[in-house]
Amino acid sequence: MNMNKRLDVFRKYMNENQVKHSLVWEPDNQYYLSGFRAISYSRPIVTLISEELIELIVPGLEEVHAGEKAKVDHLYVYYEQTDKGHLETSYRDHLTALLKKYPSGTKVGVELGVLPANVYLYLKEFGFELVDVGEKITHFRAIKDKNEIELLKIAGKLSDYAIEESLRYARVGISELEFDTNGDKYLLEIASRDYPEELIGYENWTCSGVKRSAMPHLYSSTRKFENGDPVVHSRQVWFNGYRAENERTFFVGKPSEKQKDLLKVAIEAQRVAMEMIRPGITAREVDIASYEVIKRAGYGEFVNHRVGHGLGLSEHEEPYLRFDNDLILEEGMVYTIEPGLYVPGLGGYRHSDTVILTKNGSFSITQYPREIEHLIF
Amino acid sequence: MNMNKRLDVFRKYMNENQVKHSLVWEPDNQYYLSGFRAISYSRPIVTLISEELIELIVPGLEEVHAGEKAKVDHLYVYYEQTDKGHLETSYRDHLTALLKKYPSGTKVGVELGVLPANVYLYLKEFGFELVDVGEKITHFRAIKDKNEIELLKIAGKLSDYAIEESLRYARVGISELEFDTNGDKYLLEIASRDYPEELIGYENWTCSGVKRSAMPHLYSSTRKFENGDPVVHSRQVWFNGYRAENERTFFVGKPSEKQKDLLKVAIEAQRVAMEMIRPGITAREVDIASYEVIKRAGYGEFVNHRVGHGLGLSEHEEPYLRFDNDLILEEGMVYTIEPGLYVPGLGGYRHSDTVILTKNGSFSITQYPREIEHLIF
Repeated sequence: MNMNKRLDVFRKYMNENQVKHSLVWEPDNQYYLSGFRAISYSRPIVTLISEELIELIVPGLEEVHAGEKAKVDHLYVYYEQTDKGHLETSYRDHLTALLKKYPSGTKVGVELGVLPANVYLYLKEFGFELVDVGEKITHFRAIKDKNEIELLKIAGKLSDYAIEESLRYARVGISELEFDTNGDKYLLEIASRDYPEELIGYENWTCSGVKRSAMPHLYSSTRKFENGDPVVHSRQVWFNGYRAENERTFFVGKPSEKQKDLLKVAIEAQRVAMEMIRPGITAREVDIASYEVIKRAGYGEFVNHRVGHGLGLSEHEEPYLRFDNDLILEEGMVYTIEPGLYVPGLGGYRHSDTVILTKNGSFSITQYPREIEHLIF
Repeated sequence: MNMNKRLDVFRKYMNENQVKHSLVWEPDNQYYLSGFRAISYSRPIVTLISEELIELIVPGLEEVHAGEKAKVDHLYVYYEQTDKGHLETSYRDHLTALLKKYPSGTKVGVELGVLPANVYLYLKEFGFELVDVGEKITHFRAIKDKNEIELLKIAGKLSDYAIEESLRYARVGISELEFDTNGDKYLLEIASRDYPEELIGYENWTCSGVKRSAMPHLYSSTRKFENGDPVVHSRQVWFNGYRAENERTFFVGKPSEKQKDLLKVAIEAQRVAMEMIRPGITAREVDIASYEVIKRAGYGEFVNHRVGHGLGLSEHEEPYLRFDNDLILEEGMVYTIEPGLYVPGLGGYRHSDTVILTKNGSFSITQYPREIEHLIF
């Protein structure tokens, strides 16, 4: 990753807006700018960016890890023991020391959309003028560079392998979670063979049966597939942090004509969206055009979410392909296309693919077959 | 779950502190009070609690799900299409309508530690006095009831099965991620057999080799086990939301005497902590006593984290067993005991078990053998 270029772009923005200092709190934003990501729950990690320096505050258990991975000028560590001569036992000890040199009234950048209120109030006590820089980082992150796209392509390919393997186990009597785990195991075997010493992860959500599949977002459960089930299987795979999403609706046993028709409409709505996107189109146009396909088929009332969302380091990020988002789509953006229909008594119908916007159009980095004849088990 | 009792306790607290209304943002807190949990990234979900009502705001794709699971008086839904006669397209539309009836100066409870700054500022515009109720909810959640303990016990048992199965694959040439996935697959098969139609999940972090294991928290990678590796394998399994943590350090091939000694000290530090805990002891006393064991053995400098943390709905929660936490431990608290030593050139050494505090002492819900003779492969 070219962190220097990212920092240059961010600092230019800070400079143009008279922001002297930024405090970055969101883990994916920190990773984007510093190259460091930790498994973090109750111990805050903070990245600080000024015109001259990028600095990182981490807990003691991340000291070696951050020393190795973080592309920063200074590392400040807080500890959970005090008998080794260290006095800092909280990230705030370091933060106060670092920030107190800035006079009251200094313009400080924060991510207003994620910064906890108590940290906001703490920063206010310094007399700083706090302005949002989070939206701008989101915007920078939405345009992927070549290196990021390479990682995304690997994630997409791995997700195809996983779906293919899971589908080999699609049958009456297997639970949603067992269905998922067969694909996971295979994915990790392939990845261990082909990509040594890399970081890979995944998330799955499988909603089986008429009732569960009609709810778009559910955790996979131990419910077992039954004959006649429509199943919406969702999968995200990440490779060194970058995520591809891959979702297929399939049938266990023979679907009814009506169910086949619902899936066909979802597929057509996806195709229309995928084919129309090119740089210069707005996010809203894509959402509306895809929704129109479903409405014309008479199923408009069964739609309950937008047509897609951006992804990359985060599960969801800009561009959100939503009816009221006027964002103009640009080359290098990466997003899902996943129109869905959710019909009481008949189930849910949605494929999702991860698409990269290029100069002339777009291509999908997830390639598992979409046609209904490949999706009946 | 007895949501009514939880709400009664929370409302009593609100009432005693003249808090008229609370806005609960943190997903685990919402689940604790409403019984509803969604997979949620970019679409906010908000729970509102007043003396009379508990209300929930969800996006359209959660309408059916929330209608089924949430124990609330009213459900408000915002949509991503406007052509069905719905006007609300953001959670704020509902929130504004619900809050504007409260006069300026009303005391409103929020979780200052997690509420995003921009939501805090939005609420300030109503003229409300915003006070923290998050810490109190954390405190309520720290004491588990009988039902929660039953779920935790199942999670603990499942984690033992998974570790046992993964360890059957501990050998030179298997990657960290492959090692993990074998246990996951078995866990989900057992769970699907024994607990139909339930929600189960897991997280693993395996750090293998002298270098990686000396960093306490890393994502599992495709690095392959080598002869002589110490490996710190961490696992959390959740059952219907409730998490048990189970970690074992093991060796691939023969450890050196020094490495054996390091693991023995970690085991002894864990044993001392587990045996001393009873209601009335403070969190700090446990951390200090365990740390003393390691210091007496001459390894104090290799400790870089506290001895444990609470868990339940969240990966980490109160009680934090840390040198400066004066919290008095009470019956029903659940926490990990996991002293660790991280030695450059020799690796990391840490077991973690999940322990429930009872009237007379404590018991571990994770039971995989801890002794070194069971942990050489």
